[in-house]
Amino acid sequence: MTTTATTLKGQPLDRQTLDSMLRRRMFYTPSFEIYGGVSGLYDYGPPGCSLQANIIDLWRKHFVLEEDMLEVDCTVLTPHEVLKTSGHVDKFADWMCKDPKNGEILRADHFVEDVLETRLKGDKEARGQEIVEKEADPKKKKKHQGKGQPAVKLDDAVVQEYEEVLAQIDNYGGEELGQLITKYDLRNPATGVQPTPPVAFNLMFQTSIGPSSNLAGYLRPETAQGQFLNFSKLLDFNTQQMPFASASIGRSYRNEISPRAGLLRVREFLMAEIEHFVDPQGGKKHHRFHEVEDEELVLLDRHTQLSGKTTVQKVTIGKAVRDGTVDNETLGYFLARIHLFLEKIGVDQSKIRFRQHMANEMAHYAADCWDAELLTSYGWIECVGCADRSAYDLSVHSKKTGAPLVVRERLNEPLIIKEWVIELDKKKFGPKFKKDGKAVEAAILATTQEQRESFASALKEKGSITVDVPEIQGGKAEVSQDLIKIEFRTRSEWTREYTPNVIEPSFGIGRILYALMEHSYWTRASEGGDEARGVLSFPPTVAPTKVLVVPLSSKDEFSPLAHKLSRKLRSLGISSRIDDSSATIGKRYSRNDELGTPLGITIDFQTLKDGSITLRDRDSMRQVRGEEAKVLAAIQSLVDGSKVWKDIEGELPIFEGQELDVPIR
Amino acid sequence: MTTTATTLKGQPLDRQTLDSMLRRRMFYTPSFEIYGGVSGLYDYGPPGCSLQANIIDLWRKHFVLEEDMLEVDCTVLTPHEVLKTSGHVDKFADWMCKDPKNGEILRADHFVEDVLETRLKGDKEARGQEIVEKEADPKKKKKHQGKGQPAVKLDDAVVQEYEEVLAQIDNYGGEELGQLITKYDLRNPATGVQPTPPVAFNLMFQTSIGPSSNLAGYLRPETAQGQFLNFSKLLDFNTQQMPFASASIGRSYRNEISPRAGLLRVREFLMAEIEHFVDPQGGKKHHRFHEVEDEELVLLDRHTQLSGKTTVQKVTIGKAVRDGTVDNETLGYFLARIHLFLEKIGVDQSKIRFRQHMANEMAHYAADCWDAELLTSYGWIECVGCADRSAYDLSVHSKKTGAPLVVRERLNEPLIIKEWVIELDKKKFGPKFKKDGKAVEAAILATTQEQRESFASALKEKGSITVDVPEIQGGKAEVSQDLIKIEFRTRSEWTREYTPNVIEPSFGIGRILYALMEHSYWTRASEGGDEARGVLSFPPTVAPTKVLVVPLSSKDEFSPLAHKLSRKLRSLGISSRIDDSSATIGKRYSRNDELGTPLGITIDFQTLKDGSITLRDRDSMRQVRGEEAKVLAAIQSLVDGSKVWKDIEGELPIFEGQELDVPIR
Repeated sequence: MTTTATTLKGQPLDRQTLDSMLRRRMFYTPSFEIYGGVSGLYDYGPPGCSLQANIIDLWRKHFVLEEDMLEVDCTVLTPHEVLKTSGHVDKFADWMCKDPKNGEILRADHFVEDVLETRLKGDKEARGQEIVEKEADPKKKKKHQGKGQPAVKLDDAVVQEYEEVLAQIDNYGGEELGQLITKYDLRNPATGVQPTPPVAFNLMFQTSIGPSSNLAGYLRPETAQGQFLNFSKLLDFNTQQMPFASASIGRSYRNEISPRAGLLRVREFLMAEIEHFVDPQGGKKHHRFHEVEDEELVLLDRHTQLSGKTTVQKVTIGKAVRDGTVDNETLGYFLARIHLFLEKIGVDQSKIRFRQHMANEMAHYAADCWDAELLTSYGWIECVGCADRSAYDLSVHSKKTGAPLVVRERLNEPLIIKEWVIELDKKKFGPKFKKDGKAVEAAILATTQEQRESFASALKEKGSITVDVPEIQGGKAEVSQDLIKIEFRTRSEWTREYTPNVIEPSFGIGRILYALMEHSYWTRASEGGDEARGVLSFPPTVAPTKVLVVPLSSKDEFSPLAHKLSRKLRSLGISSRIDDSSATIGKRYSRNDELGTPLGITIDFQTLKDGSITLRDRDSMRQVRGEEAKVLAAIQSLVDGSKVWKDIEGELPIFEGQELDVPIR
Repeated sequence: MTTTATTLKGQPLDRQTLDSMLRRRMFYTPSFEIYGGVSGLYDYGPPGCSLQANIIDLWRKHFVLEEDMLEVDCTVLTPHEVLKTSGHVDKFADWMCKDPKNGEILRADHFVEDVLETRLKGDKEARGQEIVEKEADPKKKKKHQGKGQPAVKLDDAVVQEYEEVLAQIDNYGGEELGQLITKYDLRNPATGVQPTPPVAFNLMFQTSIGPSSNLAGYLRPETAQGQFLNFSKLLDFNTQQMPFASASIGRSYRNEISPRAGLLRVREFLMAEIEHFVDPQGGKKHHRFHEVEDEELVLLDRHTQLSGKTTVQKVTIGKAVRDGTVDNETLGYFLARIHLFLEKIGVDQSKIRFRQHMANEMAHYAADCWDAELLTSYGWIECVGCADRSAYDLSVHSKKTGAPLVVRERLNEPLIIKEWVIELDKKKFGPKFKKDGKAVEAAILATTQEQRESFASALKEKGSITVDVPEIQGGKAEVSQDLIKIEFRTRSEWTREYTPNVIEPSFGIGRILYALMEHSYWTRASEGGDEARGVLSFPPTVAPTKVLVVPLSSKDEFSPLAHKLSRKLRSLGISSRIDDSSATIGKRYSRNDELGTPLGITIDFQTLKDGSITLRDRDSMRQVRGEEAKVLAAIQSLVDGSKVWKDIEGELPIFEGQELDVPIR
């Protein structure tokens, strides 16, 4: 399948060729493939696993260590009550319907969307208009797009109606989606019948914990909840200092209705999430914002999208926060840090944008939310979300459990509070009001400052007050001054208590990894005129293996040298692999170009004589030659990023030797 | 609770004090504690998380990188069929019974064991014998040991019977456990009633994958199966070379009936597993065995245990393999490597033993199995298993799926095969035998070499043969020489096909982590005569944080220095934390002794004058003072293990300053 996507070198990207290369080189592989596989589940082979570990390692350095975040590791198994409180049990669902004829299960919004789009396409065809493929949207799968759909012209009014429906497809609930299916008689192209009305399908995997089967649990859909529940302990650990962030790297789960799009929509995935807790007062400033304010980001804001456009603007994050495009400094700080991280691991800078969520896309409690989207052959993919979740999560868990998930801040200056205070003589209260006592008391204590003030004057004037108590007979109670005292008092408050707000950068590691593979991929013509060969130009820091060691032949005399070299590299903390197979040097190098190995060392007959070795650059295929110590120093500086290949060419003599395609044994 | 366990300094270990310290310092915490918690589920806080990451990092270097293992990352979700084939659906279960009165669920073997042990104890009391507490066995929980159990004397014969039952408690199935409960009238001490007959309780968490609920799945109980299923791809990745190992680090799950013993018996845990694939021919030699053969291990072999003893022997692994105590070199190699790993991370050398599995403890297919056990306050705990799983797993999955999970080895010398070969003229076969054709053909091809030889002579003599075909009418078929040819031929076979055997070292990271915390713990008397203070003497390599930076006071002038120092340490790859809280220097240091931070830097007024800083050693509490660059160099050499504190005292002047317990603000 050829898409409009391009490789690192601007060539048209053939996704099928890339995918087959990634699977052949075991970056990933469908899980349980010899059992037929399970859709949405993938294993990482050695290079994928190593790439993932390197991305995680950089993530930890870039975020956790750089900012002293408190990393925690919480369980995936989560009891029902926690996710009921967080809202996931009720709301973490998609609408699905079933084709009564072939039993196919359809995701309702995708289905409505697909059928309407097909009809609009048929209409355009009938009108003889050019069909412009819209920029691929990952949420819209093309499965149901009927190829044999007849070119049927629609009324202009109908076209407009369909377009309006499509524009707000994310806003419909199940009932509305069902109404659309009936109203427009939407049928499954595979069978020609209407599917059943949509039912909610919760996306969490359910299980039960313990032998008695009565403790329902789920596999977490995000790592966030574990961090929220530990808030008070983390605050203690941080010696009560605010702001601070926790972080967590771990698996999460989502029982997708029908996972497609390879590594992009899977049922089990690795997330890296940060919960930055901040005082909601004072505009959510960030003390390191000045370090990033000149960072330029490509933004697609809410207003632009509302006007139906996707025009982006490149602005500094400083400006975006100042002019209110991005809600606050802390959110802006993290958007810039996310951008720097993606740059560091090698994501193509021309394929990043930050898209702001529309008001109706966000949870009702969210203050602002931006997604870092990466352009791939599947379109723009949400890879990192960065939301201001306000005080929502801490508040609901606190309310449910009674645990005070709050910060108590000692004030330097006390707050002076002047207020009307009520004191009740509870001993006399019982005998006087009997069973109505509690209701009367509650009604009195619920009064506002204004009411209290007027009660105070009434008490002075008449010696008693009349309180509205709707719950008791008569609806009113007379309280005399021997039972109640109302005074205007002044007190000093030395502590302030508040629920922190949460800024949450949330990374889908698998999606980033996949996008990075697409962004690093290109092909080069082979010298022999064979098929073009794939190359993955990962930066050395994230490349799965840094150095390939290639003995010229599999002769026994080369083997000890190769292993000695490999041990030396290991002691420098540089990963290497020896390929002493019988394939030609050219084949062995091209295998490692596909694995993204940036450097290659050849051991040849000259090595046996003078100990010199050659070093090859994956991207230019150029080679230098030098004594071992110098080549190792060059490798170290390339791997730690302090030098680039051009520097090395200035330091060591170019080697114009062969990259042979014929076997030498 | 005081046990016979001891601290690093030989003091009696008070587990409750240690546990409360570990929880206070957030090494771990019960998951969902504000919701009341779920037994068997724990979260790691920042120091636990970091300790775990450091152990994993060392594991990866020690095993994966050192031996070029192929690391894979497979899904936790596993479909039913895979675990049915592996035997887990049928056999990965414990027997449980229920108390009909209070609904309590009991693990049957633990229940029988507890009640019988209590009776034997009562008997000893009645006989006036001393009750010697057996060495704690983690499998035996003391919960049901009745404290108020009367001292009842039993018949000598009964005592012997009980003891025989206890000796083989691991051998009983559910039915037998049920019979023991009835026969000896075993009652739950909590209620005085007999529990219901045992039923099997599978220990895997079950869920269903996808929306249609018809694909049953489990959370994996081990990472191994994912590695086996990818065997052929891994062999390809390794360019068909044997032997090789795969490795995987990830969560596994076990729905324990009633988890106790803190971090040692949990429902969700991190495992690190290696599957080393080896040719079963040639005695399973290992090419690096000579590197470890002089390594001394403490072994508790099968024969010693069979004689009812726990006497260990300290021998070199070379000797143990030579005299057959350990089955083969590859298994021995890994036992030694496991030992070296445990040593490296700081496990107490006097608290490690390798216990061989009894014949009836192992799976029927296993050739040999040893557990690395670590001594803790819960007794000897299995922390690493090292089993020779033979060809079992690859064979069963291959048989079930038809995927050839085999190695095809090209031979240097061909195998010469001489044999009787049958050729059938299939064109004539059909017309002649009609519907019986296939059965006749199958019967002919199933013949042995001997039968073929006699057929050949019969064919020569009579021009036809008579074949037994029980499936067809008459049970016999006459095959004439125009349909069949039988010849004695010689051919050369250049490849050998075999199913590799698997040696599996399997690490329970959480258990190792807990044992390490116990082994590193000790207390020291505080100077003020207060309660003794806890110290965790982790080696610098695994310590969660390497350096504590302590400004003398929280004065503003110290803060920039502290942050500059922290940045410098970070650029050296050394983790640090600043504690600029208002607590005394002494309190801040003692907080970090509890966190196991090996080094501390104090910034004081002298630092402002001449830039010098002091460096404190956690274990001796001694300090040196020097200019920043020298102290940083000292820290680096301590952290990478090239120097110890004594060396540093020889290089930098001792600082006899105060470790103040009074606030200085």
